[in-house]
Amino acid sequence: MTDNRRFILVHRPHGTPVSDDFSLVTEPIPMPAAGSFVVRNHYASLDPAQRGWMDDVPSYMPPIPLGDPVRATTVGRVHTSANPDFKIGDWVLGLNAIEEYSLVAPGGFTQKIDVSLVPSPTNFLSGMGAVGLTGYFGLLDAGQPMEGDTVLVSGAAGAVGSVVGQIAKIKGCRVIGIAGGEEKCRRLIADYGFDAAIDYKGKSVDALAREIHRAAPEGVNVIFENVGGDVFDAELLNLAMHARIVLCGLIAEYNSPEKHGARNIWNILVKRATLRGFLIADYVDRFAEGGVQMAQWFGTGKLRIDEHIEPGIENAYDAFMMLFSGKNEGKLILQIAE
Amino acid sequence: MTDNRRFILVHRPHGTPVSDDFSLVTEPIPMPAAGSFVVRNHYASLDPAQRGWMDDVPSYMPPIPLGDPVRATTVGRVHTSANPDFKIGDWVLGLNAIEEYSLVAPGGFTQKIDVSLVPSPTNFLSGMGAVGLTGYFGLLDAGQPMEGDTVLVSGAAGAVGSVVGQIAKIKGCRVIGIAGGEEKCRRLIADYGFDAAIDYKGKSVDALAREIHRAAPEGVNVIFENVGGDVFDAELLNLAMHARIVLCGLIAEYNSPEKHGARNIWNILVKRATLRGFLIADYVDRFAEGGVQMAQWFGTGKLRIDEHIEPGIENAYDAFMMLFSGKNEGKLILQIAE
Repeated sequence: MTDNRRFILVHRPHGTPVSDDFSLVTEPIPMPAAGSFVVRNHYASLDPAQRGWMDDVPSYMPPIPLGDPVRATTVGRVHTSANPDFKIGDWVLGLNAIEEYSLVAPGGFTQKIDVSLVPSPTNFLSGMGAVGLTGYFGLLDAGQPMEGDTVLVSGAAGAVGSVVGQIAKIKGCRVIGIAGGEEKCRRLIADYGFDAAIDYKGKSVDALAREIHRAAPEGVNVIFENVGGDVFDAELLNLAMHARIVLCGLIAEYNSPEKHGARNIWNILVKRATLRGFLIADYVDRFAEGGVQMAQWFGTGKLRIDEHIEPGIENAYDAFMMLFSGKNEGKLILQIAE
Repeated sequence: MTDNRRFILVHRPHGTPVSDDFSLVTEPIPMPAAGSFVVRNHYASLDPAQRGWMDDVPSYMPPIPLGDPVRATTVGRVHTSANPDFKIGDWVLGLNAIEEYSLVAPGGFTQKIDVSLVPSPTNFLSGMGAVGLTGYFGLLDAGQPMEGDTVLVSGAAGAVGSVVGQIAKIKGCRVIGIAGGEEKCRRLIADYGFDAAIDYKGKSVDALAREIHRAAPEGVNVIFENVGGDVFDAELLNLAMHARIVLCGLIAEYNSPEKHGARNIWNILVKRATLRGFLIADYVDRFAEGGVQMAQWFGTGKLRIDEHIEPGIENAYDAFMMLFSGKNEGKLILQIAE
């Protein structure tokens, strides 16, 4: 193995990404200079946030430069090293890219991980990683749920949403999930213990709002928002007084050049609600605290984390697009090496 | 004087209210039963919130019943009384209606006021009333401005906006106001001490966003929102990290059946901002605290409060509509009696 296949961004997508926006190229495996090392990526996390990084707009991270591989959190093993802290064979988690080998320069965000703690190294991309901690800090810190509250989660069958719902249940809340399709709604209740599930597909804002009202006649105290668009508009019609809304994602509009936004913010005023933008990057100094709690729940079976692993870097485009069609069941991960 | 002219809501407005939605009727002056009293209203407050009460939608107050006079905060004097706590001639402030005489039943929100404290009884409808306290608690409590912050106020030449800007200056912030027209922008700087003023009229969202960016190249730390619509969309493109947004009003959409909402909430996520719906009704138990501070600033000339008094209950419709054309300069008040 001397070749490094890389999944390159060649055009900035207009709306929904097409396969021609990317190119799989083969280059030599990089050589580490002093202080650097090379990671053989085994798994790459596929996340809605990557769609944002493909646009040339200001964000919490710089856009992915055209000609660079698509930025991704990966789990892999040190392949060659010129850094005494990282030895060949060490398992690491880092912000790298969808490519077989990543060169990690000094100061890059890559840390060693103890894969013996968890059933699979992929767990560091799901429950033990940013996804699990997004659910943990997003719900508990930004959402401030209280025992007995009604918590509404959109994108509830997704990687973050399913964690949020389960933590809300652990905290004594009543939990309603919104997801796309009967099968996902079935899983919300059967697999994740939600109290109620609502299928948003084919429903108008008014119809969806009425359905939320039936499930939460007194209104919802906490909304954990992953979706946006019409779903969010319907939710905003069902706020309880002083509701807290955690704005974690807006996947419904990531591929749209027109921003839908939130039409019903008037009800945030009427109900004196609070909407907070949430990004896990603000909680880096509390990762250890959250990781310990997540590992305990995960290890004692209180928390179920599903992973959907698609094999092959050559399938990177098709796998990424599953995020938008909703075809994945659980945290979407691309397997790059065995 | 035995007649009571009343400004009655006869139809719920579709969009912008028309004069036929209202009717000025003459009825006998009511007689107070035991515990009640009748107020001769001298002044009625005209506020954007009244437009919301005319719709048949859930809100923080019940809709104004058709056939009832338009609900309003008024200042007046006790005319007849069957309540020993309210004597004929006492000045009172209460939630009554646009009518010459209001019957106040036991338990209604009406309190005696000491008009010797202020230059004019109308001040209890502006700086010393809900308007001034909305600026005070909305900015300081919901907006949490820190010395050196950049504060952006929309509807800045309005009753609430001009108070917010002046309090932000007292607290050591840099203050930018958005208003409609050159004359209002001139007053922001000359009369209220704003650091910069931006005229939104005739500008696209992008053009307005660029102008805000020029005035606040590092972004704004606090937004005090009275307007909504395109103005709010442009503001949301200029958030500093962890910005606080006080959602106090959305006058741009009160007359629109289609809700515009906020198109650029994606930037609330990117900048991890917080948006809070604010209503002064939540602060009733702190009115005394706010009133003392406002009276001190007002009395020592640190705070300028402008009032725009339109005379005559027969002009109630035309006066109310000034709120939406932006023709008033200062807190809009209808004078009902000399």
